[in-house]
Amino acid sequence: MEPQDLEILRQFVNNKLGGDDTQLDSLSEKPPQLYEDFRATGLANWWLPEESGGRGFSLEDGVEIVNEIAYGDAGVAFTLLVSILGSSVIRLYGSDDLKDRYLKPMAAGGTSCAALGSEREAGSELNRIGTVAARSGNDLVLTGEKFFATNADFADFLLVIAKAADDPDEYLAVVVPRDAPGVEIVKRWDVIGLRASYTYSVKLDNCRVPAANQLSGSGLRVLETGLNASRTLIAASAIGIARRIRDHCMAYAKEKQFRGGTLLESPVFAQKLGQMEMQIDVMKSHCLKAAREYDEIMAGPDAAKVFSRKGTLKSALTAKIFCGQAGWSIASAGSEMFGGLGYTNELPIGKLLRDMRYVSIVEGGDDVLRELLFSRYVIPVSRRT
Amino acid sequence: MEPQDLEILRQFVNNKLGGDDTQLDSLSEKPPQLYEDFRATGLANWWLPEESGGRGFSLEDGVEIVNEIAYGDAGVAFTLLVSILGSSVIRLYGSDDLKDRYLKPMAAGGTSCAALGSEREAGSELNRIGTVAARSGNDLVLTGEKFFATNADFADFLLVIAKAADDPDEYLAVVVPRDAPGVEIVKRWDVIGLRASYTYSVKLDNCRVPAANQLSGSGLRVLETGLNASRTLIAASAIGIARRIRDHCMAYAKEKQFRGGTLLESPVFAQKLGQMEMQIDVMKSHCLKAAREYDEIMAGPDAAKVFSRKGTLKSALTAKIFCGQAGWSIASAGSEMFGGLGYTNELPIGKLLRDMRYVSIVEGGDDVLRELLFSRYVIPVSRRT
Amino acid sequence: MEPQDLEILRQFVNNKLGGDDTQLDSLSEKPPQLYEDFRATGLANWWLPEESGGRGFSLEDGVEIVNEIAYGDAGVAFTLLVSILGSSVIRLYGSDDLKDRYLKPMAAGGTSCAALGSEREAGSELNRIGTVAARSGNDLVLTGEKFFATNADFADFLLVIAKAADDPDEYLAVVVPRDAPGVEIVKRWDVIGLRASYTYSVKLDNCRVPAANQLSGSGLRVLETGLNASRTLIAASAIGIARRIRDHCMAYAKEKQFRGGTLLESPVFAQKLGQMEMQIDVMKSHCLKAAREYDEIMAGPDAAKVFSRKGTLKSALTAKIFCGQAGWSIASAGSEMFGGLGYTNELPIGKLLRDMRYVSIVEGGDDVLRELLFSRYVIPVSRRT
Amino acid sequence: MEPQDLEILRQFVNNKLGGDDTQLDSLSEKPPQLYEDFRATGLANWWLPEESGGRGFSLEDGVEIVNEIAYGDAGVAFTLLVSILGSSVIRLYGSDDLKDRYLKPMAAGGTSCAALGSEREAGSELNRIGTVAARSGNDLVLTGEKFFATNADFADFLLVIAKAADDPDEYLAVVVPRDAPGVEIVKRWDVIGLRASYTYSVKLDNCRVPAANQLSGSGLRVLETGLNASRTLIAASAIGIARRIRDHCMAYAKEKQFRGGTLLESPVFAQKLGQMEMQIDVMKSHCLKAAREYDEIMAGPDAAKVFSRKGTLKSALTAKIFCGQAGWSIASAGSEMFGGLGYTNELPIGKLLRDMRYVSIVEGGDDVLRELLFSRYVIPVSRRT
Repeated sequence: MEPQDLEILRQFVNNKLGGDDTQLDSLSEKPPQLYEDFRATGLANWWLPEESGGRGFSLEDGVEIVNEIAYGDAGVAFTLLVSILGSSVIRLYGSDDLKDRYLKPMAAGGTSCAALGSEREAGSELNRIGTVAARSGNDLVLTGEKFFATNADFADFLLVIAKAADDPDEYLAVVVPRDAPGVEIVKRWDVIGLRASYTYSVKLDNCRVPAANQLSGSGLRVLETGLNASRTLIAASAIGIARRIRDHCMAYAKEKQFRGGTLLESPVFAQKLGQMEMQIDVMKSHCLKAAREYDEIMAGPDAAKVFSRKGTLKSALTAKIFCGQAGWSIASAGSEMFGGLGYTNELPIGKLLRDMRYVSIVEGGDDVLRELLFSRYVIPVSRRT
Repeated sequence: MEPQDLEILRQFVNNKLGGDDTQLDSLSEKPPQLYEDFRATGLANWWLPEESGGRGFSLEDGVEIVNEIAYGDAGVAFTLLVSILGSSVIRLYGSDDLKDRYLKPMAAGGTSCAALGSEREAGSELNRIGTVAARSGNDLVLTGEKFFATNADFADFLLVIAKAADDPDEYLAVVVPRDAPGVEIVKRWDVIGLRASYTYSVKLDNCRVPAANQLSGSGLRVLETGLNASRTLIAASAIGIARRIRDHCMAYAKEKQFRGGTLLESPVFAQKLGQMEMQIDVMKSHCLKAAREYDEIMAGPDAAKVFSRKGTLKSALTAKIFCGQAGWSIASAGSEMFGGLGYTNELPIGKLLRDMRYVSIVEGGDDVLRELLFSRYVIPVSRRT
Repeated sequence: MEPQDLEILRQFVNNKLGGDDTQLDSLSEKPPQLYEDFRATGLANWWLPEESGGRGFSLEDGVEIVNEIAYGDAGVAFTLLVSILGSSVIRLYGSDDLKDRYLKPMAAGGTSCAALGSEREAGSELNRIGTVAARSGNDLVLTGEKFFATNADFADFLLVIAKAADDPDEYLAVVVPRDAPGVEIVKRWDVIGLRASYTYSVKLDNCRVPAANQLSGSGLRVLETGLNASRTLIAASAIGIARRIRDHCMAYAKEKQFRGGTLLESPVFAQKLGQMEMQIDVMKSHCLKAAREYDEIMAGPDAAKVFSRKGTLKSALTAKIFCGQAGWSIASAGSEMFGGLGYTNELPIGKLLRDMRYVSIVEGGDDVLRELLFSRYVIPVSRRT
Repeated sequence: MEPQDLEILRQFVNNKLGGDDTQLDSLSEKPPQLYEDFRATGLANWWLPEESGGRGFSLEDGVEIVNEIAYGDAGVAFTLLVSILGSSVIRLYGSDDLKDRYLKPMAAGGTSCAALGSEREAGSELNRIGTVAARSGNDLVLTGEKFFATNADFADFLLVIAKAADDPDEYLAVVVPRDAPGVEIVKRWDVIGLRASYTYSVKLDNCRVPAANQLSGSGLRVLETGLNASRTLIAASAIGIARRIRDHCMAYAKEKQFRGGTLLESPVFAQKLGQMEMQIDVMKSHCLKAAREYDEIMAGPDAAKVFSRKGTLKSALTAKIFCGQAGWSIASAGSEMFGGLGYTNELPIGKLLRDMRYVSIVEGGDDVLRELLFSRYVIPVSRRT
């Protein structure tokens, strides 16, 4: 990423997301102009590889980009980042034909894709999913219902994780065009924050796609691989929200009269902002570290194999857990900083608190991720550096 | 309070506040039927003394009552409890005539009053308020603007804290009828939680009332005295919200499939609920302790004098700080308990989280109360029990 | 308890425990004069019933007493309080003969008893203990090894929890005289804090006692009943340690030069001390509440039956968990209050930090108690007040 | 640093620091053999530049080295790392002659130096120090008393921060040979942890040194520059202690019987260890980030100027604050993991808890560092990335 990209991005954030948050906090329809404006920055789906016509930015660049956008609005950031999951695994585990058919249009049009993993019953236990893929000649027929699928309604395609009909231990990752017969949007979720994002529950009713739409390897590993990227970017969005909270506190403190001066001169205020700044600094270090770990594997000749072997990366897990916790600590402290005014919608802190909450919840809660971290990275080795 | 009062109250909560929270979370107009139904329980303004036609319940009873109502909805609880501030100080520092004119109708009609203390500039530094009371013959003329005044629009009267026009060190507490000329509701606040409550900013424009409407003693001490009661009840509302969160967790865990059983059998879940239950138990002990301390003074022959001397009671401060903190810890943990579903408005946890937030904010944030605690109760004595 | 008892106690604490903590922090031999001096206050084993020649003080009194002693030294407090476990269950579940033989001498001589529950393997899972009691004529023969037994070496008797040799589901609570053949002190533990207390591991090698030394009822329930009292007093000791920390902070702040004044004038210091004071206030409320709940049952005609039915009281669990957590928060904050000096043994804060740590560890860690709380008090009822 | 250096280091840690911690926890005399053995690794004073005969390792290497040593013993780590403060500022702000006289012997002999900044009265307010440097011909004469000076007794030289006798606004950093007349060790501090380290209070009584021993630039900026390195390494020592705690938990859990299996299979244990691992991972990322920021400046042509301008680096502040807090959270959780055994000196957890405490205390407590962070890095810019 070049410095001018960041500059263009900041202008977009300032001009289109700054100021009044009302519309972005309203669960409204997707505002076409806003996303048209983002596409005009040339940064849409920034991670898509150059061979597919994309910008080929690293995940480390992605951390900066998401940090910037989330400073403006975390719902917009989530909408823009979450396609990395489905598209990055096509890049790693899809045929050249799939890449041509699905990644090139995403790069050219700045469009979206959706990942369909979680189900009502299965929750985080993906081995218990009920969506089934049956082989039928050269086709796969998918049936099931997926609980949370962000961007699904307007996505180009859905990445569906399903169980093989003929083998309860086999999981598939299958690319399903959004307009395939049998894909049905059940409803849009009324979320408590991130209200400029779009999450749906989706039904697949005998949805027939070519068998060649299956990605190679176990569907569960494919999903884990894709989650490495999206979880790191979700973590990065917490940095942006946190910086926004800090800046609101500072702006307020400069004006707020307090004991013959302004709140800015209060030593107690200084302690709180110092603690916030410390947390923000650490969040950023660790997201960048997680991104570099991912980028190093991606840059290697055997990225697909390495990810198949490793699955969930340690740093992606720890980035999401840490940023969720540190972010919530910042949002909690921030929400007490404005007196009674902070309990009203005159200030954005209520929205920012609700937005921040998602970091610890989506794509695996802390309990799930801590257990994964324990079983994958604490148990295996008895001494680590 | 008799057991049957509690029973009636619980029926009211179950029947009128249970179930769908949509309306109560909507910042809608005050629903007349709901408050009519509450009045029908005979518990409206339960603390008013028997000599004014009230029920004469203790603050300890009040803790139980508020705990129960807040289990249903904290906004309704706050609407119903907050009149204790203005009415309890009339009881202590008002003339018999004021008691007749203002407490009797409140007891008979189950109506409300409002306290007008805070101002935009002054915030928690009440010595910096700009509202002025000028003596004019047998009248007082009040001018100023008050920032947050819950129930003000439909209150019988407003308890206004003002500075004497002729003495910058003198503060008055004055009873102003809601329908006095010059009382103007500037706006209703759009609050982030507690959306079934009604908080306004209010302007007083040359508002003329009889000088006899002034309560005896310093206005700042009068206000501190009244806050002892309301802060203890605000703390108690946190218990109700916390119990509701716990019960939602339990109801969810009973149904939620988890590793071949239900979530209820998860040892990790048990730890979280055990921690919540511990916090709830301690919150309750301490609110009751604070209430008993208040009740003992109120039951004494010199209640007005004792409160004038003591002002803010230690236990009222510590109850509000503690319940705000423990409540927020419970709400934060609760909001991570439901997976992605907990980030939607299908479950009430998002509302309960927003509702809980108010406890640490209204009627003095933690910083303000901790400093008061330090200067009044830590500095003075070098060894305490 | 009369006010003069508290006065005598405070003099004892000031004169004998105040000042230099070196000896009390040294794991030295039990200082005979110190305990002689305590006996001289007339408060030794204050809880023993008047019919056994004791003072008959309530557990609520006990909370005050332990709070005072722990202000001086928590190790001395623990040494003095822990006999309540073994002696209170003899009172409830022992024959008149056992009461005469064991409680009367304790009341007359201010001596000690010890409870032998935990074992190396069993830890908190008491159903897995390996100590066995075999019936042999009119005797019981006990064999096993107990891990932690405070006061065991100089106790009059040991309350041993054992499994019946002939029934793996039956547990016995048996009174074993310290001087019974086969009682062997294996070693004294080198504890990290509370170094004026005396905890041993003890071996029972074919230790023969009359069958009449068995207390009535299940040994596990007997133990739970006794733990109600000792856990509440352990919780109370955290109050004393916390008050000592607060007072040390205040004494230091009065002298410490800071920005042209003293540290006492720092708003940041005020926040920290305000938070401590709040926590201390709540700890005290809740310990007293737990004690009253225990006292009410003890004062009833069916105390033994009620405790057999209830076992662990909710408030005893929550008091110990809460005071352990709040106490650790206070000790952690306190240990950062003195700069580098606080990292030396010139100040007592290092000792107080180590002392405080025991509250969350002995007689059941938080995990164990939270799980008990969950299974006994959260699961059974779906809605509580 | 080459991989074999790390290997040699690990062998040293395993062979010389592993196992019995008794001696290292005893405040004993400095064990000559241990430090001889470390010197034999070739890593002593690893940061000294090659032109002075040193290894020229980066601060990033230093983070790894300190992490490893602190895994063995944090007191040894602190003893070995703290000379970086005094020597790195001679490198930046000393004459070639000073470098020859002081850095070359340190590189050749693996010896130590000490920094003498803090004073009893001044605490963290270095502008209030009372040590004075008077010009006398070509000499400087220093007089004063310094509170905490690690390694001072056996150091080659002391880096003394003093006020100019003739200008109350000028501060000097002066190199004083340990054997200069007038240097007097007042006492060794009896520290609560890190007991294998050696901290003294030191008196300077008309201590005469050549004026050429003064480093260039303001003494306060010189000190800030040196603290960047030592604070980052202190933060890194917390990683080593934390890893040791984690590994002790794991070793214990493998053996500890729990509910028909071992503690290792407990989901609650998994959550705790997962949380620890997350914190350790983040600590490491951020220390490395802080070290890289320092190394980049050091590698530039204007390192001395850049540090004079910047003084305290943001990342050095945030690394120490964060690692102190995360480390304390890990140590606190760890100390509750072993039941009663964890309250004894049979296990090392008590020592590790005491050792960890120092991270948040030495070289600036959190309050001091947060305020510095606020004034230097939050106030100046209103929007940061």
